[in-house]
Amino acid sequence: MLAAIVAVGSELLSTDRLDTNSLQITALLERHAVELQGKSVVGDDPVALAAELRHRLDEVDLVVVCGGLGPTADDVTREAAAAMLGRELIEDPEVWARIERRFRSFGRVPSENNRRQAQVIAGGRVLPNRHGTAPGMMIEERGKTLVLMPGVPFELTALLAEHLEPWLAERSRGSEIERVTLRTALRPESEVDRALEPAYRELGRERITVLASPGEVKVRLEAAGTAAERQERLAVMERRIRELLGAAIYGRGESTLEAVVGELLATRGATLAVAESCTGGLLAERLTRVPGSSRYFPGGLICYSDAAKQALAGVPADLLARYGAVSEPVARALAMGARERFAATYGVGITGIAGPGGGSAEKPAGTVHFAVAGPGGSVRHHHLRFPGDRERVRTFAATAALELVRRLLLDIDEPLWSGERPT
Amino acid sequence: MLAAIVAVGSELLSTDRLDTNSLQITALLERHAVELQGKSVVGDDPVALAAELRHRLDEVDLVVVCGGLGPTADDVTREAAAAMLGRELIEDPEVWARIERRFRSFGRVPSENNRRQAQVIAGGRVLPNRHGTAPGMMIEERGKTLVLMPGVPFELTALLAEHLEPWLAERSRGSEIERVTLRTALRPESEVDRALEPAYRELGRERITVLASPGEVKVRLEAAGTAAERQERLAVMERRIRELLGAAIYGRGESTLEAVVGELLATRGATLAVAESCTGGLLAERLTRVPGSSRYFPGGLICYSDAAKQALAGVPADLLARYGAVSEPVARALAMGARERFAATYGVGITGIAGPGGGSAEKPAGTVHFAVAGPGGSVRHHHLRFPGDRERVRTFAATAALELVRRLLLDIDEPLWSGERPT
Repeated sequence: MLAAIVAVGSELLSTDRLDTNSLQITALLERHAVELQGKSVVGDDPVALAAELRHRLDEVDLVVVCGGLGPTADDVTREAAAAMLGRELIEDPEVWARIERRFRSFGRVPSENNRRQAQVIAGGRVLPNRHGTAPGMMIEERGKTLVLMPGVPFELTALLAEHLEPWLAERSRGSEIERVTLRTALRPESEVDRALEPAYRELGRERITVLASPGEVKVRLEAAGTAAERQERLAVMERRIRELLGAAIYGRGESTLEAVVGELLATRGATLAVAESCTGGLLAERLTRVPGSSRYFPGGLICYSDAAKQALAGVPADLLARYGAVSEPVARALAMGARERFAATYGVGITGIAGPGGGSAEKPAGTVHFAVAGPGGSVRHHHLRFPGDRERVRTFAATAALELVRRLLLDIDEPLWSGERPT
Repeated sequence: MLAAIVAVGSELLSTDRLDTNSLQITALLERHAVELQGKSVVGDDPVALAAELRHRLDEVDLVVVCGGLGPTADDVTREAAAAMLGRELIEDPEVWARIERRFRSFGRVPSENNRRQAQVIAGGRVLPNRHGTAPGMMIEERGKTLVLMPGVPFELTALLAEHLEPWLAERSRGSEIERVTLRTALRPESEVDRALEPAYRELGRERITVLASPGEVKVRLEAAGTAAERQERLAVMERRIRELLGAAIYGRGESTLEAVVGELLATRGATLAVAESCTGGLLAERLTRVPGSSRYFPGGLICYSDAAKQALAGVPADLLARYGAVSEPVARALAMGARERFAATYGVGITGIAGPGGGSAEKPAGTVHFAVAGPGGSVRHHHLRFPGDRERVRTFAATAALELVRRLLLDIDEPLWSGERPT
């Protein structure tokens, strides 16, 4: 079964609001293995809405419309759907009686406007709404189904559960879809994609989705069938993807890189302190997003000025003078300084040029030096260069620092990407 | 002119992602008085996308497509648009040369996959992308215009500004809508709304929009007409809103609270250092988001553990033992410690319970103590309690700290909201 979602409301076409109701509907469709072909937002315009509904109903089997069932003149979903189907709108005495009862229970009387909410499309099924005045509707046309739902989120939730869920369950008969997400950091999307080519061939391209965000690439696997089949299929897929991507996979499902690094530290009884320059606290902020991070994170230094690098992290003045603040020796000194000041097992140092200013031909904006100091005086250094604006460089740099710590803790030696070389 | 926006990407049809790129495009269209008829999301399916583009191009004058221009096989926008238009895709040697140069500048070599990104639609105009590999495209067909844009948000921002904005400006010829946004921090939305009632009556409800986000409330004013009329109308409205909200307005337009505080510090030749506990670096991270923040921000301490509060910020052990880490005396000591360690004009201390754990009946999650230390040993303290989850509490706390510094620098004495009392 193929579906589409249409959200109705001019406010959803402004810059301040987003349709989020469709997420509820999507979750329900996904669970019942209904493929969502597309979703759209239309304003309170009956002509445009009728055209949209026609287009959608031509393309898919099930169209779920959400919103525009209120009592005011700009609630146009009923009219648009009736016009599109070429059917009449008729007042349903039972729906009107329910609206009157509902108002009476609050000590009020419905207005003439509310009569609009008692209008139903001829031949459609009314889906009673216990939480509001507007009922939903379900209309069949030539083997296709149009469902109208109210836009008030909690009314929608109830109507989906009471009416759409059972209808879908009857049709999906246990063929639900299950998903697993595997997560990598700092691998370029194109490299992940190339590495996955054998899996695309063997397992099917359409079951594997690559999702990139700054500094991270996720691989989502999908399986249908009975519960046992789904699990078996996902296990096979996951095994293959893990063979292909190896240690680049840092986590699974919802686990974030900072949570994974935190867990690695915690299970080793280790602690991590940071000394940040260009990231300005972002690495510490990410580490402390995780509830309970105080188990392994004592704290950090943000050494934005050279004076702070000297006074707080103990970076020798002559290193700063000789190599500049953005350099390997300073990154190493920051890492060692953080480790010592907080008496931590590991110390991370980050120094770079976030931009947009401050770069030079030799050290352009995006240049970042990282060091991780560990027990016994060992310090590992990386020199990376990130593309993008200030925010992006900082995001990449914090992610890179976390990934470098993960690799150190797990003894992973491979380069972050082809061409990258640790020192 | 009537427009539609199409966002491409199967991930945008999942429950984990929402299309937010369309908001950027919408803002641009609004500015040029282009009416948005609808927006939609389509997955990485070339057939469905081609059908969607055809449908949209039949209905409106301008279709802006966003996403699906990446290097992988599931980036199908180029193919779908070419198929829909019945035109060829051809490799553009200039685009390919630019991609190769770009990779080289990062010491890398483009993969064969990246060649896809050099393909352009015959007869289309290439919109060079200085921030990424995929160029945009603009194609005219029978008086209608199809624009293809990359889905990476900052690449999109740049391409909209460099290519679509001038194109729209040429066509809108002065019929623009202009907006001014005034920004407040920490005022509850309902208080701002109440304070604005006279303005609603005098200036028109529909021209004033109140927009709330965690810790901030923005007031957006809107005027149409010729450039001179718009400016005159906006000036009158802004004057009135400023009378009603007074010192609560910290900024205007795109200026963030951290940028405003930074500017206040810079013009005074003052510096600010921080010592953060529950915010874990978020305050420093916000301050250093601003390019050039090194002028007034030497650095900060993240004192997550009690040991770090003592060793790094010099918080006396007996204060911690007597009052606990989340207390007024510790906040004051952190502020003074930050000020001294970095030899800064001002020091901020934050200590609180971000949650979800760690709260008690006396100090529930969301409890945060703030202190700002200034010259001459003066320290101002605030004790606030924020609603919401860990992320929300931390966001509120960082915003509150910035707002408290702003109020100190500007000598603003009024409470943050009715009922709040500084000590």
